[in-house]
Amino acid sequence: MENSQNRNTWDVIAELLESGKMLKLERYLESLKPAETARAVARLDDEKREQLFQALSPGEAAAVILDLPDSQAADVIGELEPESAAHIVELMPDDERADVLGDVSKHTASAILDRMSPEEAIEARQLMAYADNTAGGLMTRDYLAYTGDWTVAKVIDDLRTHRERYAEYNVQYVYVQSVDGRLLGILQLRDLLLAPSDCRISDLMIRDIVAVPTEDSLDNLIAIFREQNYLGLPVVDRHGHLMGVIIRDSILKATGERDQRTFLKMSGIMGGEELRSMPLRRRIGKRLSWLSLNVFLNIIAASVIALYQETISSAVVLAVFLPIISDMSGCSGNQAVAVSIRELSLGLVRPFELWRVFLKELMLGVVNGVILGGLLTFVAVLWKGNLYLGLVVGVALALNTALSTCLGGLVPLALRRMKMDPALASGPILTTVTDMCGFFFVLSFATVMLSRLAL
Amino acid sequence: MENSQNRNTWDVIAELLESGKMLKLERYLESLKPAETARAVARLDDEKREQLFQALSPGEAAAVILDLPDSQAADVIGELEPESAAHIVELMPDDERADVLGDVSKHTASAILDRMSPEEAIEARQLMAYADNTAGGLMTRDYLAYTGDWTVAKVIDDLRTHRERYAEYNVQYVYVQSVDGRLLGILQLRDLLLAPSDCRISDLMIRDIVAVPTEDSLDNLIAIFREQNYLGLPVVDRHGHLMGVIIRDSILKATGERDQRTFLKMSGIMGGEELRSMPLRRRIGKRLSWLSLNVFLNIIAASVIALYQETISSAVVLAVFLPIISDMSGCSGNQAVAVSIRELSLGLVRPFELWRVFLKELMLGVVNGVILGGLLTFVAVLWKGNLYLGLVVGVALALNTALSTCLGGLVPLALRRMKMDPALASGPILTTVTDMCGFFFVLSFATVMLSRLAL
Repeated sequence: MENSQNRNTWDVIAELLESGKMLKLERYLESLKPAETARAVARLDDEKREQLFQALSPGEAAAVILDLPDSQAADVIGELEPESAAHIVELMPDDERADVLGDVSKHTASAILDRMSPEEAIEARQLMAYADNTAGGLMTRDYLAYTGDWTVAKVIDDLRTHRERYAEYNVQYVYVQSVDGRLLGILQLRDLLLAPSDCRISDLMIRDIVAVPTEDSLDNLIAIFREQNYLGLPVVDRHGHLMGVIIRDSILKATGERDQRTFLKMSGIMGGEELRSMPLRRRIGKRLSWLSLNVFLNIIAASVIALYQETISSAVVLAVFLPIISDMSGCSGNQAVAVSIRELSLGLVRPFELWRVFLKELMLGVVNGVILGGLLTFVAVLWKGNLYLGLVVGVALALNTALSTCLGGLVPLALRRMKMDPALASGPILTTVTDMCGFFFVLSFATVMLSRLAL
Repeated sequence: MENSQNRNTWDVIAELLESGKMLKLERYLESLKPAETARAVARLDDEKREQLFQALSPGEAAAVILDLPDSQAADVIGELEPESAAHIVELMPDDERADVLGDVSKHTASAILDRMSPEEAIEARQLMAYADNTAGGLMTRDYLAYTGDWTVAKVIDDLRTHRERYAEYNVQYVYVQSVDGRLLGILQLRDLLLAPSDCRISDLMIRDIVAVPTEDSLDNLIAIFREQNYLGLPVVDRHGHLMGVIIRDSILKATGERDQRTFLKMSGIMGGEELRSMPLRRRIGKRLSWLSLNVFLNIIAASVIALYQETISSAVVLAVFLPIISDMSGCSGNQAVAVSIRELSLGLVRPFELWRVFLKELMLGVVNGVILGGLLTFVAVLWKGNLYLGLVVGVALALNTALSTCLGGLVPLALRRMKMDPALASGPILTTVTDMCGFFFVLSFATVMLSRLAL
């Protein structure tokens, strides 16, 4: 490993595997940053990757897998023997474990669960039962809870005794519960620090606390954590029993992941996830399902042009302007779509505020339309010396810019109201409608003006 | 406020302002979620918004402003009298204060700073001097630090004395420094809890610690916080003096904001930020600068069509297919752009790995190209009964899909290597090149085949 700095991490790993230097391999993996690990794991061939995870101890393997993006982690776990996978996931934090097992196929997940220790499997199944992006799906079971009759000294003693185990917990609060598990109050660790040691924690706890039901939505949780500086938020069932704790971090991560999925969906990646380490067939499927939908929508939109073939044969120059009108309306519309999706996700606009968005986009669309249409008129006149041609294409672009700007603002709100996913559906709907209208504007105006367009 | 549930929050606020019920107003504002506050503030007219912030105490106003998205917060602060703005920002956490003052105009910022207490102004100027998305720009000065000779008892006593002030700090560690301010070590609060009270904190602290220089990049910080469960990370100057602390939260927030900006830039919003509450003129500027660039690029691309007007007049039906080829290549290319931008931001691909991305995209692009080209051939033959027309448009689409898929994957990496912003520049470069190539493929093939296309 003398000059490992100058070599690809995956080559170094492959070499260490081949030479059987396991200690060196473990030390080398520890020295990598998570992104480097993820890159290296993706670039090993299937055989080498299997070798790698067989060579690592389950604890080491769990650490490596935690460094991978969720979908890659699920792929790696899915490739392993269920027996080895079970040993590895047992050593992951409970919420991450539930996420990974939720991401592999049902068949694989139950094969792995069957090979885990019964208690761990039961707990994992319980956490997996909650939907993603709900309080139940985001919470951890690793928290500190004591009944209210414990004294400060007893709690501190317990903390000291289980110091090592608790060190892995990401929780900064102590939860106080009744004998039958109902949540009574919360203590900050620093309050323990400052209290007399014979004080009962029920006398010390904050009683006026916020707790959320297991089915609470990510949107609600984001709102709560944005409003308050909580590091953790308790989750309770219908009867007030403490079921788990949501760490501030999980919410920020879940929000980031949701935003990333929105970004990829808007760009036409079905399911909102693709990594180039995925099998080619899966990547093709994700992209092609979107593209083949779009090719049909495009054909439908272009069929408007077919209705005006006579007009085009009289003024062939129009063929130059049709793609310009189509592309530019797409650009204007997509800007408005992006702003609407962003404002929806921040809660700055609500799905029924169509009128407000319409007015805001109309003014902007008209101004931009007039300027862009003017530009196109100018270019057309400069090129062909025909004012009528300039007006036909310029007015069409102006109208269609205003239209696509308004529509782009409204479509995401309308889709959200219909409980559909704005990120995935807004683009295709928008471009199909605005293409059709744009082609219609140019070609119908040109048909009327045909005698003046003779070139 | 009997039925405030059924009324718009901004109407309720306006009414409370008019009737002068300030206590009710404050209580009402406290009851709103941050997104509701942001929505209401955006929907008040300028006059009412001014009234609102005059009516609130500086502390209340600071709380309201902290609930707003960054750009909206800067707009509100910029609208206020510098005197009132100064009182309000003095009550914000120091890192948020530096962010807001960095977002208003230079002139406004210095007017506000001049009216702050001298010490606060000096500290704010120091924090503002660091670039955004560097360790210095992300750190806070609100942390706990003691010299190493302090005992556990003395520290706990200090914590107790300043309990109220420290409660606002988001820090879970105690930093140990030398008399001249160099960082020596770190203590977790829980370690204080478990130690004998006469122990010196220098004997208790962890010495083997990670600290970052003020100029460290967000990318690096993300890597560190992803790898380690740190709640805070100390920032030091060249000489090892403790300058501030970065809270885990700030990194996750900064990452989220960067991703949001990427999303908006990819959709053609200059600067990566637009809210509909911004003045119309600013929104038009952000969108129009992008659109007017694109209209010129579109005209350049479409000029390829102008070279083939004779071909089109012999086979007008080609005009129907040109926008389809252009749109579809854009779709295929954008998918690859999005995956590259995502993989770059996760660190899963490095800017010089052009060859790997090329191979990964080539295979996928060829498969998708063949399938989409086949589809288009089929539709064209079905429509016009002319196999040659079908082959011309199908082969052109197949070639151009493969090309735009590869190019879409490579352009973001190439731009990153040239230190340019892939999110903003990838789209226009890609569509201009693929439009030109697509038009060239269809029309040059058609020119060769012209005798067989006679329709």
